[in-house]
Amino acid sequence: MPKQYFDFNSLKFMLYKVHDLPGILSKAHFAEHDMESIDLFLNSVKDFSDQELFPYLKEMDEQPAIFKDGKVKVHPQVKNIMKKGGDLGLIGTPINFDDGGLQLPLAVHTAAYYIMDAANNAVPGYTGLTLGAAELIVEFGNDALKEKYVPNMLSGDWGGTMCLTEPQAGSSLSDLTTSAAPQKDGCYKISGQKIFISGGDHEYVDNMVHLLLARIEGAPAGTKGISLFVVPKYKVGEDGSLSPNDVATAGDFQKVGQKGYCTTHLMFGEKGNCQGWLVGEKNLGLKYMFLMMNGARIAVGRGAAGIIEAAYQASLEYAKERAQGRRLIGGKKNLEEGQTLIINHPDVRRMLLMQKSISDVSLSLVLLAARYRDLSENAETKEERDQYHLLLEMVTPMVKTLPSEMGITSISNGLQVLGGYGFCSEYILQQYYRDIRIFPIYEGTTGIQSLDLLARKIPMADGAALKLLSNEILQTIKAASTYEGLKGYGEQLSKQLLQIGKVLGHLSSFAKAGDFERSIADASIFMDYFGRIVGGWLSLDLAVKSHQAILTDDKSFPASMYEQKIHTMKYYFTYELPKCEGLRAILMNKEHITIPEQSTVFS
Amino acid sequence: MPKQYFDFNSLKFMLYKVHDLPGILSKAHFAEHDMESIDLFLNSVKDFSDQELFPYLKEMDEQPAIFKDGKVKVHPQVKNIMKKGGDLGLIGTPINFDDGGLQLPLAVHTAAYYIMDAANNAVPGYTGLTLGAAELIVEFGNDALKEKYVPNMLSGDWGGTMCLTEPQAGSSLSDLTTSAAPQKDGCYKISGQKIFISGGDHEYVDNMVHLLLARIEGAPAGTKGISLFVVPKYKVGEDGSLSPNDVATAGDFQKVGQKGYCTTHLMFGEKGNCQGWLVGEKNLGLKYMFLMMNGARIAVGRGAAGIIEAAYQASLEYAKERAQGRRLIGGKKNLEEGQTLIINHPDVRRMLLMQKSISDVSLSLVLLAARYRDLSENAETKEERDQYHLLLEMVTPMVKTLPSEMGITSISNGLQVLGGYGFCSEYILQQYYRDIRIFPIYEGTTGIQSLDLLARKIPMADGAALKLLSNEILQTIKAASTYEGLKGYGEQLSKQLLQIGKVLGHLSSFAKAGDFERSIADASIFMDYFGRIVGGWLSLDLAVKSHQAILTDDKSFPASMYEQKIHTMKYYFTYELPKCEGLRAILMNKEHITIPEQSTVFS
Repeated sequence: MPKQYFDFNSLKFMLYKVHDLPGILSKAHFAEHDMESIDLFLNSVKDFSDQELFPYLKEMDEQPAIFKDGKVKVHPQVKNIMKKGGDLGLIGTPINFDDGGLQLPLAVHTAAYYIMDAANNAVPGYTGLTLGAAELIVEFGNDALKEKYVPNMLSGDWGGTMCLTEPQAGSSLSDLTTSAAPQKDGCYKISGQKIFISGGDHEYVDNMVHLLLARIEGAPAGTKGISLFVVPKYKVGEDGSLSPNDVATAGDFQKVGQKGYCTTHLMFGEKGNCQGWLVGEKNLGLKYMFLMMNGARIAVGRGAAGIIEAAYQASLEYAKERAQGRRLIGGKKNLEEGQTLIINHPDVRRMLLMQKSISDVSLSLVLLAARYRDLSENAETKEERDQYHLLLEMVTPMVKTLPSEMGITSISNGLQVLGGYGFCSEYILQQYYRDIRIFPIYEGTTGIQSLDLLARKIPMADGAALKLLSNEILQTIKAASTYEGLKGYGEQLSKQLLQIGKVLGHLSSFAKAGDFERSIADASIFMDYFGRIVGGWLSLDLAVKSHQAILTDDKSFPASMYEQKIHTMKYYFTYELPKCEGLRAILMNKEHITIPEQSTVFS
Repeated sequence: MPKQYFDFNSLKFMLYKVHDLPGILSKAHFAEHDMESIDLFLNSVKDFSDQELFPYLKEMDEQPAIFKDGKVKVHPQVKNIMKKGGDLGLIGTPINFDDGGLQLPLAVHTAAYYIMDAANNAVPGYTGLTLGAAELIVEFGNDALKEKYVPNMLSGDWGGTMCLTEPQAGSSLSDLTTSAAPQKDGCYKISGQKIFISGGDHEYVDNMVHLLLARIEGAPAGTKGISLFVVPKYKVGEDGSLSPNDVATAGDFQKVGQKGYCTTHLMFGEKGNCQGWLVGEKNLGLKYMFLMMNGARIAVGRGAAGIIEAAYQASLEYAKERAQGRRLIGGKKNLEEGQTLIINHPDVRRMLLMQKSISDVSLSLVLLAARYRDLSENAETKEERDQYHLLLEMVTPMVKTLPSEMGITSISNGLQVLGGYGFCSEYILQQYYRDIRIFPIYEGTTGIQSLDLLARKIPMADGAALKLLSNEILQTIKAASTYEGLKGYGEQLSKQLLQIGKVLGHLSSFAKAGDFERSIADASIFMDYFGRIVGGWLSLDLAVKSHQAILTDDKSFPASMYEQKIHTMKYYFTYELPKCEGLRAILMNKEHITIPEQSTVFS
């Protein structure tokens, strides 16, 4: 196993300086925290991850979660992770003090979980989904539900899940059919099945609290008739006693990656005896769920960012130790020389720089989204709240997608750095290559996120969100323009930015002519294109802030780190951003290649 | 499991029409064959693959090759594959009748093995490497070696391997240290270890014949001092009896993919008692091996092409059966409608078309290389031989690399088509995603192939190979220009072709200024760039020949297949070729981002 799975200096630099944690902490809501307490908290998360997560990464892959005798068996370390994670407050990081949480900014929560993701990417789901489920109850549930469930979840004694997907509906939530029949006592009788339920069942918690989407009898069709319920595995008596609630586990999906993380198939009410309690109002379930889902989407991007970084550290360590071949200097190789370390081969260096730049951009993007949410929720004026809310909405599909998609490429390159060993189970890269593959699927596939970006977020509020984001980018370009060494990169970004309007104009011309399907058919290409430009912005922003730190002789972090950030930005602008030229050429096409009626049937 | 793993019509169209098998068969060397006998042969290979390979694809993954008690255990089906493959002549397809083979064109061999690769991608290595080892003996060995080893290899009773890689040398063959000490009886005492030896040891053959690279004592340093030896696991007595030859198996590498295929670590002469027999002349071993290696590189591309196609078929089948969501027509979804098949969603269709186009281009490329070799080896004039030889040399690094690299993207998209199920072990896509990952590493990594392309093949014979290839491309453009519907695509390709010189001029300007390392530092990007243009050519060629078949009402294949080929070309020109714009922008950079002295140290 590699010695290191993330770069703490880089994380702190991004959180503290680049994404201005002091600015977030200055909000009244966070008055109990200061930079020192946050630093201690993150250090404790690193210790926890060093001890409880990273050492089990490979073992949990080799001893996957399985379904046997009607039960899901997971690695026993899950018990420690839930309990010690609960003790550390990790199941309640952003939840208010009053509700038993740490009342931390989402940016800090994101940084903390990023460390855990990098250490053992599947495992933070056990605590993280429990937290998500608890948040839904805190946010929308009544006091009875809160009291009954939340404290046991935050302590790690009970787990929590999100139950959305059904076999016949997949991503199409309007087609879900799990039903809820009102009972006299105010609760509902639940009947249906849910699949792909992460962390859905295991023996290391005493109860499992499912936050489940279902239709109340007679509810409107589609997404407008979906309500949210708390459906525990065991019903909780007045005295706290637990009794079965007719929630059965039908199986555990065996997967190619994240094998330590159980993914269950659950049956609700097979015996007609499963009770659920409504959360909030009827038929608003999807709205509630989507508030959480936006957080979940940041969490998916964060998970991908964590694996990307861990894979980078593993490739880097190998490349610094492995000698092979010779450099070609002066056109000839000198056989008398010993072999050189492979990190000295330009092609290996290119692959490492790709990993590093994608890691930087991914982490910065998830922290950005978290910061937008913190600033929106703690805004002092409505205008400010709306502004950051729009920015958050705008970046959410990208946060979910870019680290996930770029991660596959980045980690595949990371595996290539190791040559034949990269393909061997003994080395960790092959696990990361498998683990990362779920990320473009989790919580809305890339196709769905891309439609969200192009068809909903770009036109949202008459284009106001796009305008706000452009202004943010322009500010960075302006800052870059004041430094001779960075000016050219700002100009490059500026040129790319100017072209976006043309692309959007072209795509919307189809819609104007009534061809809506075609206007969004290339949404996934647009995601890659636009995301790459946003990546350029974040990369330049890192370089600007690093440059400023060098100029002001800021000793908070090593000078070498600042230099590296600038060089990594140069890599991105030289090898990643120019791909926009090709993507733009694709987007400007006038064809109907992917529209069924206009393309030949597949044989 | 999917019902289909390749498209026989498409394969036959490409082999028979597009790559003009009749033209190859008209050569004297192939006088015993005709189109009918080839068709029967390919049908028998399909039957063999249907019965002996495809049904074991998943099982061999789930019961991987392992090392236990000093022995490598592989799936028992390997026995049938070797014996029945031998009976079918598959271990001697291109070998002359006189040496016990079928004396078939390499193009036919390639088509036959492509079917097997698509059926069960790791398994054709068992017969294929045995064939490769036998070919080396036939080509360069003396009669005694031929008589002793070849018949038992061709029958599938004995296996064969290629032993190149050593732990300390990896891809750097100049650094290999396995030694050969001359003995009085004309043989050599071998000492050393070899790693990553595919099919290196198992119980289902009676002997294993290793073709091994080693240094004879006192040989020159580097690649000029390497000789080739036959080193059998068991020595063969005059009476045919077998006795141990001090070849021990130290382990079997556990891998993330191709798990049914053993990858061994072999120790030669640990007890000082391992005998090897020189093949051909001293110190020419690498030259011999590279003749074979070029064939092996076509074989790697072919294997990747096979998996790409099998993955496409699996994704396609799923997309045609799975209903989910609704189309967006007229800007609204109609919930009253039932869900649509996912193949009707433009984004899914785009992913399928990507898979299909990459499959077409990959298969056409491997058949092209095989055809070049057939035409070179059977040329009637020296000029013709040299010409096809140059073309073969030119395309070899691309054949190895493009299907391998594009395959990762293509199969990853194929997995995405299945959504969450794609990540589940129950479905085959996840296995293909793992299996394909070795291809950019096998037989010279992408980095090495790219250096070969840019630094050796492009400048080879004063650029004559590049010129020949350009002429081939121009011919296709000319043919396209005569059809109204294809003309525009030819023009697009022509524009791309014209830019290559500019890119090469830029890269060579570094070399002219003495900076050789920088001039080839972006070789992998060049491979992607140049390969995409070559892919465009092959795609257009398929479309031209399909169009001609429609015009002449050629009923050899279904008209729908011709239409599909044309549409797939349109996909490639709309979504894949334009990426060259971005890649060219990258290649034209003047920076030294990846050169060690000019980039900051990694932390």
